[in-house]
Amino acid sequence: MQNCPQVRVEFETMADRDTDWIGQIGQQDRALRALVRLAPDLPAARPAVTLGVKDIIDVEGLPTECASPICEGRMPARTAACVAFLERAGARVLGKTVTTEFATTKPGPTRNPLNPAHSPGGSSSGSAAGVAAGMFDWALGTQTAGSVIRPAAFCGIAGFLPSAGYIPREGVRIMSPTLDRVGVLARDMAGIEAMLKAFPAWRPEPLPDRPLKIALLPLPVWDTADAATRATVLGTAEALRAAGHTVGELPDPAPFLEMMDAQKTVMGYEIPRALSRELAEHRDLLSDELRDFCDASMAIPQEAHAAALETADRFRLYCGALFAGHDAVIGPAAAALAPEGLGWTGDPFVNRIWSLSKLPAACVPGGAAANGLKASVQINAAAGRDGFLCALAARIEPLAAAVAPG
Amino acid sequence: MQNCPQVRVEFETMADRDTDWIGQIGQQDRALRALVRLAPDLPAARPAVTLGVKDIIDVEGLPTECASPICEGRMPARTAACVAFLERAGARVLGKTVTTEFATTKPGPTRNPLNPAHSPGGSSSGSAAGVAAGMFDWALGTQTAGSVIRPAAFCGIAGFLPSAGYIPREGVRIMSPTLDRVGVLARDMAGIEAMLKAFPAWRPEPLPDRPLKIALLPLPVWDTADAATRATVLGTAEALRAAGHTVGELPDPAPFLEMMDAQKTVMGYEIPRALSRELAEHRDLLSDELRDFCDASMAIPQEAHAAALETADRFRLYCGALFAGHDAVIGPAAAALAPEGLGWTGDPFVNRIWSLSKLPAACVPGGAAANGLKASVQINAAAGRDGFLCALAARIEPLAAAVAPG
Repeated sequence: MQNCPQVRVEFETMADRDTDWIGQIGQQDRALRALVRLAPDLPAARPAVTLGVKDIIDVEGLPTECASPICEGRMPARTAACVAFLERAGARVLGKTVTTEFATTKPGPTRNPLNPAHSPGGSSSGSAAGVAAGMFDWALGTQTAGSVIRPAAFCGIAGFLPSAGYIPREGVRIMSPTLDRVGVLARDMAGIEAMLKAFPAWRPEPLPDRPLKIALLPLPVWDTADAATRATVLGTAEALRAAGHTVGELPDPAPFLEMMDAQKTVMGYEIPRALSRELAEHRDLLSDELRDFCDASMAIPQEAHAAALETADRFRLYCGALFAGHDAVIGPAAAALAPEGLGWTGDPFVNRIWSLSKLPAACVPGGAAANGLKASVQINAAAGRDGFLCALAARIEPLAAAVAPG
Repeated sequence: MQNCPQVRVEFETMADRDTDWIGQIGQQDRALRALVRLAPDLPAARPAVTLGVKDIIDVEGLPTECASPICEGRMPARTAACVAFLERAGARVLGKTVTTEFATTKPGPTRNPLNPAHSPGGSSSGSAAGVAAGMFDWALGTQTAGSVIRPAAFCGIAGFLPSAGYIPREGVRIMSPTLDRVGVLARDMAGIEAMLKAFPAWRPEPLPDRPLKIALLPLPVWDTADAATRATVLGTAEALRAAGHTVGELPDPAPFLEMMDAQKTVMGYEIPRALSRELAEHRDLLSDELRDFCDASMAIPQEAHAAALETADRFRLYCGALFAGHDAVIGPAAAALAPEGLGWTGDPFVNRIWSLSKLPAACVPGGAAANGLKASVQINAAAGRDGFLCALAARIEPLAAAVAPG
């Protein structure tokens, strides 16, 4: 890894604009390492809403470095559309946040604010950790496998991956044209709603005035989840039942299990192709693990990719029937509490299903475990019903938070 | 084109099994050229339901030649899933049908049964022409841009492109993993329904007991359509109104127009990649037009492909809202009556929109124009509502057939 330097955190240069609020963030960041760079022109008074932007998303005046020396200092032509919409809604970009190398697996230096001995998850590591620590109010992340929902879960904040197409990808470095989506992170669902409202696709949808019918992700799909995760999800299901709603386990795990495999195929096929120029021109500047992943994945045949895309099409048909009879699906947002150490950002787990499905996903945290970490609940709804899912996740949020994972 | 021989139509070999019914088909085919090969083991009595299979779809015992000398004599390992389901529903494979080169643009020798001086459309040319001529009852086609709906329209039969994922693609030569779908062709919607019922995804959905609310595809999207097409679509809309339903033109053409462009980008990006082995090993055996298309399309950047996939995601969100307020969309199934001559299979036109959308599409013919040709109506419904669209197209079928295009 000698040839692949760590992401440069540039708080050294911050002294000359050391106002109270920026100084405080600098203090936090020295421990947390959530930020790559601060925006150059921050005001003396803290803006009402500050925004952290994953460093694969363009912001004018800041380089987009993708946690790779290959992109060092690369200045974008203009600000990404997703950032521009949030700016128009009143947010001020605070800075770029730490990501893994090209938003894949090699971790950055960020620690988990709930317990600094643990990973914040990835690849939207700094975005989730910075929101959890209160360094900024909102953050943008992206998800190919589980990179928005998993770090939100590990850091104990709200995360939302809108339906594919809801947030424009213009100005975002795409690793998988099929899978990649921009997602939003905030302290709670009220923050998420405010962020979602910033986009033209927003359509509010209040909850119906009747008991909700909720499907529990089949247990065989997530039977490797740890005890805290299991307790948090099942405890939330129990709380929903106690509030008068129906929660029943879906009978057949097969459609979900084949999606987890298909997502790996699509990601494996598309990522090396998205990195083809880097592989050709700067092979030595990629990490060993990313280079090995690309080399191995180039063997995935086009037929397997086509079959995996078809699995996704079939799953969306299945979901059409599923969501005709259910308001939502609940399950875990991650396989386990955040892993110890910073060497691994965790398993994308069931997030793979929903990434490939193009359906929306929300994450709300449960109560804290003994080590301060939290397990989280994932909620999914029908394609395009982002307003409904936002309202539903806000309803579930206090129920999940009240669950003690034991 | 010297290096690219015509598809071999092998009715020469048919004499030695010349029963009445096969002899009659042979007679028809000498004029029409819909078949590439007959199945080897046809019974003496005509089966109740016969099936024509586009020659990019595998049938055990018959080569899959994709209308290319590169694939000459290539025997598949087993029968494609889509064929197997129809066989299980009682159909007997009659033979393989003429397609364009690798299901792209270079036409085969098939003529239009409505008027043999005209093209039957493509790329499912023989499948549509053979059904229209009564040579077989059912046929399978595939669509990347407009290759099921357009030939159905040109030949004056019913065509149906189910939601992506409805018909398995296993055993089908895929040219665009994102776009390609298997579709079905039959003389009328009763035949289409029987074919759709053969697949496990079938879910019948009767029409509601109220006036239907139908959206007309915005006229600026299809203002280049010819007079017969315009008269057929608008006449069908008028007949629906007379029957008590609502038909209103959608106000904004933009979402549809950008889909037409995006489909071209996705197809252009994916086809040369699907043909990468052929381009590397048998470049000289590809037609000039396909080779030139591939060479030019390789210049499409990955960013453009990613943006086009995002356009499709955004369109599906748009359709979620659209189909919340409308039962269906109607518009033309092709830009014009079938073109004269066999040199060009016609413009995929608005079919591009629905191919990229992954939504289902149905085609029902209008009345005959002076030259015997017919214009057709395309009907689209929400993703997964194939049973509903089938019922609706059957309702519209007699209304469209009664429209005289003038």
